Amino acid sequence: MKQEIERKFLVADNRWRQAVGEGLLCRQGYISLGAESTTVRVRVLGERGFLTLKGPQLGISRSEFEYEISLAEAAYMLDNFCGGRVVFKTRYLLTQGELCWEIDDFAGANEGLVLAEVELESEDQPFEQPAWLGADVSCDPRYRNASLAGRPFKEW
Amino acid sequence: MKQEIERKFLVADNRWRQAVGEGLLCRQGYISLGAESTTVRVRVLGERGFLTLKGPQLGISRSEFEYEISLAEAAYMLDNFCGGRVVFKTRYLLTQGELCWEIDDFAGANEGLVLAEVELESEDQPFEQPAWLGADVSCDPRYRNASLAGRPFKEW
Repeated sequence: MKQEIERKFLVADNRWRQAVGEGLLCRQGYISLGAESTTVRVRVLGERGFLTLKGPQLGISRSEFEYEISLAEAAYMLDNFCGGRVVFKTRYLLTQGELCWEIDDFAGANEGLVLAEVELESEDQPFEQPAWLGADVSCDPRYRNASLAGRPFKEW
Repeated sequence: MKQEIERKFLVADNRWRQAVGEGLLCRQGYISLGAESTTVRVRVLGERGFLTLKGPQLGISRSEFEYEISLAEAAYMLDNFCGGRVVFKTRYLLTQGELCWEIDDFAGANEGLVLAEVELESEDQPFEQPAWLGADVSCDPRYRNASLAGRPFKEW
């Protein structure tokens, strides 16, 4: 098990686009949003498939188990097990100092939304905030991908 | 993906016990009983852990994906992700002809219930029914393990 400690931000402008390479298409869906807040997620990222279970969120921390599965299995689950609770986005990686930012440029019903996430070693780890970073939305449940799958950005 | 085609029976008496070896302790819980009837199950069987996803049941068939995971991860998920939806049983295997019967002797809140399952290649495959076999309960939802986790046999 991994303990996932994550901070999530809006982006203030497009300067980050000059610093990233090509993104990976990502399609992820929710098999369960779960009683007890356990989330079961299936994801196709580029040409790879993943199954991820996340425990209840405590502040900005969650327990997380991730398993790589075949692309065909992940695609089947996205089409048949998620009941349409699917988000589409392009994921870009941007390394700054020791940290790797994941920048998600959403598409489909969440088009127009861009979120930047960074994973930390501890909840109080200090880190340098890039100039293009916007508001901290780590604790706003609307910006969770699982929420965006059911109540997309364009409907807010 | 595997297509799971299963027949499930009560047992009429204890004659099967003379034909089996030692059973394996099994503890399995339900992370999701799912919208769209997708079930996410975690199981500890003997010293091994498994994560299994099953699609909606169509007659006696279901799509199924099973992944072996570490014993420690499975135990963590059973304790933290299942909200108490857990069944305990001892599983015995009994080979008869070309078929392998799985006989589950339930414990805890389902004590007194014994179920025998056999997996078939097709829905209409003929098979020999052992003398100790009782009623066919393949299509009775009360006998699904996921149901027994929430509404155990002793409460019927």
